[in-house]
Amino acid sequence: MPATYTIGVDFGTASGRVVICDSSTGVIISEDITTYKHGVLDKALPNGESLPNNYALQHPQDYLDVLHTSIPSALVKGNILKEQVIGIGVDFTSSTVIPTDKDGTPLCFKDKWKNNPHAFAKLWKHHGAMKQAEHMQLVYDQGPFHFLKNYGESISCEWMVPKILEVAEEDFALYEEATYFVEAIDWISFVLTGNLVRSNCSAGFKAFWDEDNGFPQAFFDSCSSLLAMLPQTKLSGTVAQVGDKAGELTTDYAKLLQLRPGTAVAVGMIDAHAAVLGTGSVDPRTLVMVMGTSTCHLLVDQESVEVPGISGSVKNGIVKDMHAYEAGQSAVGDLFAAFVDQMVPENIAKQAQQEQLPILAYLEQKLGGVKAGSTGLLALDWHNGNRSPHNLPHASGSMLGLTLQTKSEEIFLALMEATAFGARSIIENYRDAGLTIDKIVAAGGLPLKNRRLMEVYASVLNQAIHISSTPHAPAVGAAILGAAAAPKVEGGYETVLQASKKMGDAGNVIIYPENEDVERYNQLYTQYKRLAEFQIKALEDLHSCHQKEPST
Amino acid sequence: MPATYTIGVDFGTASGRVVICDSSTGVIISEDITTYKHGVLDKALPNGESLPNNYALQHPQDYLDVLHTSIPSALVKGNILKEQVIGIGVDFTSSTVIPTDKDGTPLCFKDKWKNNPHAFAKLWKHHGAMKQAEHMQLVYDQGPFHFLKNYGESISCEWMVPKILEVAEEDFALYEEATYFVEAIDWISFVLTGNLVRSNCSAGFKAFWDEDNGFPQAFFDSCSSLLAMLPQTKLSGTVAQVGDKAGELTTDYAKLLQLRPGTAVAVGMIDAHAAVLGTGSVDPRTLVMVMGTSTCHLLVDQESVEVPGISGSVKNGIVKDMHAYEAGQSAVGDLFAAFVDQMVPENIAKQAQQEQLPILAYLEQKLGGVKAGSTGLLALDWHNGNRSPHNLPHASGSMLGLTLQTKSEEIFLALMEATAFGARSIIENYRDAGLTIDKIVAAGGLPLKNRRLMEVYASVLNQAIHISSTPHAPAVGAAILGAAAAPKVEGGYETVLQASKKMGDAGNVIIYPENEDVERYNQLYTQYKRLAEFQIKALEDLHSCHQKEPST
Repeated sequence: MPATYTIGVDFGTASGRVVICDSSTGVIISEDITTYKHGVLDKALPNGESLPNNYALQHPQDYLDVLHTSIPSALVKGNILKEQVIGIGVDFTSSTVIPTDKDGTPLCFKDKWKNNPHAFAKLWKHHGAMKQAEHMQLVYDQGPFHFLKNYGESISCEWMVPKILEVAEEDFALYEEATYFVEAIDWISFVLTGNLVRSNCSAGFKAFWDEDNGFPQAFFDSCSSLLAMLPQTKLSGTVAQVGDKAGELTTDYAKLLQLRPGTAVAVGMIDAHAAVLGTGSVDPRTLVMVMGTSTCHLLVDQESVEVPGISGSVKNGIVKDMHAYEAGQSAVGDLFAAFVDQMVPENIAKQAQQEQLPILAYLEQKLGGVKAGSTGLLALDWHNGNRSPHNLPHASGSMLGLTLQTKSEEIFLALMEATAFGARSIIENYRDAGLTIDKIVAAGGLPLKNRRLMEVYASVLNQAIHISSTPHAPAVGAAILGAAAAPKVEGGYETVLQASKKMGDAGNVIIYPENEDVERYNQLYTQYKRLAEFQIKALEDLHSCHQKEPST
Repeated sequence: MPATYTIGVDFGTASGRVVICDSSTGVIISEDITTYKHGVLDKALPNGESLPNNYALQHPQDYLDVLHTSIPSALVKGNILKEQVIGIGVDFTSSTVIPTDKDGTPLCFKDKWKNNPHAFAKLWKHHGAMKQAEHMQLVYDQGPFHFLKNYGESISCEWMVPKILEVAEEDFALYEEATYFVEAIDWISFVLTGNLVRSNCSAGFKAFWDEDNGFPQAFFDSCSSLLAMLPQTKLSGTVAQVGDKAGELTTDYAKLLQLRPGTAVAVGMIDAHAAVLGTGSVDPRTLVMVMGTSTCHLLVDQESVEVPGISGSVKNGIVKDMHAYEAGQSAVGDLFAAFVDQMVPENIAKQAQQEQLPILAYLEQKLGGVKAGSTGLLALDWHNGNRSPHNLPHASGSMLGLTLQTKSEEIFLALMEATAFGARSIIENYRDAGLTIDKIVAAGGLPLKNRRLMEVYASVLNQAIHISSTPHAPAVGAAILGAAAAPKVEGGYETVLQASKKMGDAGNVIIYPENEDVERYNQLYTQYKRLAEFQIKALEDLHSCHQKEPST
């Protein structure tokens, strides 16, 4: 049987990446990236009209451009024939929400709405729906509802339904005009196949849906009359299972992408969750840390348990017959980037430049002999709030042990340690809830670039860290979805689990804990927990006496 | 009567400054600075021999160079005749200790000893006597002694007797050779007059001496047989009162300095304490904050009370018939300087350069509209330990409320606020002990350069801050000592109090508290105290689990 391939399309915040993988090995044969022409619309619309501070929109045309440009380009680069491509899968940032007409055309594509912010895609990090999320939280807290027990009992303004309510409340005319609100994940398969099929991964993790009860209509009714009948109208469409086929490539789109009509298009997935598939880590008791600007801590297990303070748990959310658990750290790569921007002095920047190293790599080099937990510093990694396990979006970071002699590389080490302590608190929280974690996999660019970081994690967690060899685990995960959706006779798989086992790879780089460091970090972690407790208490009070004002 | 003048010589850490003041008004007529050729010997001796990490020595020839160069130069600059100069006063860093022969020649001037570190001046910040200070503290704590009740019950390794014991223990031959150990303050008057007269200011604040009991010989005996007879031998010499005359200028020295033989030379004074005279703030209930790299909080009062955690209290230590109190903050200017070195990023440094402003001035400008206590940040100013009121030399600083958006100017404001909170904790400690503070004077370069800092202090302390108009208050204080020592018929004064009242000046710039800010800072100060408590507890534990290692 000749080699067959599947396409994975990974839609990130700034660009989309297409990979073409061998469907039997998962090896990336070729790839191509298209940067979004409009980027993140957080200052102004394309027409120049300025946007409120907490807005983050995108233009869906940018997503189409990724398909139109990078798929044909990757085919050419890999010298791959359309006959060899048996499936397409997609992963996407989430919850990114697009209002469309009945054919799936985004309202912002229409002259009538093209100057209306609510007609655009609301990117995951759009925070315009804070008021709506707070209102919904209040209704939940005061009502007879229980469906958030799997979501740490808390509603995020980044989720889908608050974003829909935001449109309804802020622009009713546009709300009425929208036939559907579609998660961007599902919008891509809608475009490619003509079928509106919603992924149970995003519906479950980002829209209150669950397999047994569907959407919580009674709750929607209690929140606002505007949300009446939502599941039957603007949220209608089949909710399908990750690993299933959403449909087949239309003739028009096949032509555009230079693929075969009828090529299988998979039900899509949230990007971090797709990374679990990409690393092949679909066994119970295996935690995948998808490490980027933030970290997602993902885990599948046969057991259904309630874990306090997590982002969510969804049955069949990653693979069939398993409960998928997601917890999160709000800032990891972002924390290091902010440190570089805010706190690395000129002389260090100059030295790094002389050594022709990125600043963090230079500081890691300078750290050389500095031992674990030896800086006298202790940091709390809550610079962007704490997502899990405390669910304190307004918490902030801190640093103890500063002296007149404190060095930049020491602060960097303390921040690395802090994120590792943050990861430990999430893992302990999983374990306290009754889940077992025997293996830890780190995926993403950060683990590959920063060896010291992984050494710190191994010793703080007192567990070996398997470093995924690909920085593109989500894209490979998307290609795996494509393979699971493809007919088995063409080279596809029976289940996404099988596809992931075969095509995913956790790599063979393993970092082990150092006994001496484990001991030291155990002691420091006790301090970290005390600092966390203190901070929680202090910030409650600070919040009441501070009135944060913009400084410019 | 024609104008008469007195000379003040202020010996700092890096240079010496000579001012010539009008003896009736205190106005500085001319001044001259000589930078120490050898600077601080903290890496190596002049012969290149390297020194231990915690050493800080000086070459006394540098002190002589100040006299020899800057006094004649200031006379010429001011067009002042030797006949018009009626007195000389000196202030000096303390405790800076010089071993000399019977004539007052420093041992390091001699070929036999010039390569021996213990033969040099041990600068105030020399920390080679830590072991000795700890031993003495132990002896004190376990013995029947009470003389430290006026010194916060604690012995600093920066004080004179630990430094003497260090020499005795580390190099007995040199110790034996030293006829005297002389505080640098007193060494200058010894050189100028030929009389070894010790200032009650430094003997009191830095050498356990008190007016009623002299030196605590029983304690010395308990500490080490090496200290036997110390007051009768190596610490012998009259202890004289601040405001008195130490002697008269010798013929030789008069020639060298181009002054009259017989010119009155005053008993010297610790630099910060001289600043109290320089600002004319010698009234009870007036606190002088001498603000530089660190801050001294000085106060005179008729009342003798025990104040916990202060640096010391000495009867007649600043003016006669008053108890002088000294408390301290270990890092103020140093904290801001370390912030600039450690944490101000390249882009801010570049912007400041473009605006042709020093970095802190640029950040102060950027702070513009940022309101008191509005940054969400809370810092603890213990980056160089806490001197008063907690006496925790190994404590460290901290910063709460950091976010991904934290700006440099916000950190700067939080650090300013932190030092103000530190000052408030010292002032409250004085008040709790029974002292009254009705007026606060800020002296030094920092209050003159940084207006926002003073606004923060006024509101945090809820009290008007009088800003001394001279950045050279210690030097003026020294000139005041010269005037007090000079014969009244020549233009001198009966007492140092009178001289200070006439020649000193607290200036007429007064910064008042802002009601709104006072309220906010009261709330934040509660948080500061809680953070301090937490830090004290946390650092006890951190200390046991961290083993600080040098990073290079």
